[in-house]
Amino acid sequence: MDDAAKVLAVEEIKKLKARYFRAIDTKDWSLLEQVFTDDATCDYRGAATDPSTGTNAVPVATETVLQGKAAILASLKTGLAEVVTVHMGYMPEIEVTSGTGATAIWAMSDTLRFPAGGALGGLSGSGHYHETYERIDGKWRIKALRLTRLRVDVVEAR
Amino acid sequence: MDDAAKVLAVEEIKKLKARYFRAIDTKDWSLLEQVFTDDATCDYRGAATDPSTGTNAVPVATETVLQGKAAILASLKTGLAEVVTVHMGYMPEIEVTSGTGATAIWAMSDTLRFPAGGALGGLSGSGHYHETYERIDGKWRIKALRLTRLRVDVVEAR
Amino acid sequence: MDDAAKVLAVEEIKKLKARYFRAIDTKDWSLLEQVFTDDATCDYRGAATDPSTGTNAVPVATETVLQGKAAILASLKTGLAEVVTVHMGYMPEIEVTSGTGATAIWAMSDTLRFPAGGALGGLSGSGHYHETYERIDGKWRIKALRLTRLRVDVVEAR
Repeated sequence: MDDAAKVLAVEEIKKLKARYFRAIDTKDWSLLEQVFTDDATCDYRGAATDPSTGTNAVPVATETVLQGKAAILASLKTGLAEVVTVHMGYMPEIEVTSGTGATAIWAMSDTLRFPAGGALGGLSGSGHYHETYERIDGKWRIKALRLTRLRVDVVEAR
Repeated sequence: MDDAAKVLAVEEIKKLKARYFRAIDTKDWSLLEQVFTDDATCDYRGAATDPSTGTNAVPVATETVLQGKAAILASLKTGLAEVVTVHMGYMPEIEVTSGTGATAIWAMSDTLRFPAGGALGGLSGSGHYHETYERIDGKWRIKALRLTRLRVDVVEAR
Repeated sequence: MDDAAKVLAVEEIKKLKARYFRAIDTKDWSLLEQVFTDDATCDYRGAATDPSTGTNAVPVATETVLQGKAAILASLKTGLAEVVTVHMGYMPEIEVTSGTGATAIWAMSDTLRFPAGGALGGLSGSGHYHETYERIDGKWRIKALRLTRLRVDVVEAR
């Protein structure tokens, strides 16, 4: 790949990740379906656990690695449909390794506001996504995602 | 446009939006004037309204669409000159549609700290900008901006 | 430089700044060492001071300009090794001024959580980095960094 093709691929992967975030935050599940490869895996284990304390704030459905697009979609829909989520992604380090492969580390922060009446008001966390991408039929897709955390803060119910 | 010209246009639009944010947050009104086309429109309706409750937190001057650069500048100056603002923009999805036209969706979060003594301490919100751009005399400008919200939180006065 | 080389340099500088943030937040000091030129300077003066009040929240080691990579590393290690930090960088305005020089303004927010038992729980701030870069042996490095603040908020000890 020449320089121009490489930076274009980087930009396309940034937009792919933007659609991932926007789909989750606006609950656009058909958009979300388009960002993953069929065999994608998502590892959100520890997403609700502050690294300093090791305590899992909520019994979230993130304690197994999600295998395949269908399982990922089902889990995110079940877990987040009634949750107001805001995801912030920034400072990507994207490496295009070939015409059809790439990896990235993304810094991220998110805030979750749970439905009223629950034991917990919300969660707020920060960390990094570690991802790989595959280009299929000219379109970049997320093939593997793993989340690590710097901190997770509990927001008390009001 | 070839690939290199396209990614350069994307980068120029990112810097344009960066100047929009920086101008507002540092109250650099002459810089802000340079980011809009003369006929720009800004639709901030609902910027202070949490989507879950529908309640407008403050009677802000955002309930009409601002028409034209002069009206936009006047409104932002009046509304924000005494407010400490922090705007965060991230995860743009920029589509360059021609040599002189482009659209984008930006994820965003902002925090406003109102002057002491008022009824409200501040606001904190997240959402998306939906924008169009026009390139005039070789320079990209914001032609239309519309803000949608995921959540808006009130910060109590201290 | 042609367009493709210029946007590639911009992307490399973005990744350089991403490594700066990631190194600090994950306490990867050997990674941090690689982001600075030997003669780099870092000016974090006022990083803990809210511009509205002028009060310095904590007696942080940021009241002199750090001169040289060794001094920068020593100061950041001493000041932050026991602090949970989250740095967010966004909206860069990068200007590549030559094949080996560049400048940038970055918008930023950070949150610091101090070790339990201290007088202060943490700090949360936003502002801008004003930076210059130098390309040495084909690799971009931070040569000068200066931080200005829009706001700094104190988080009470729990």
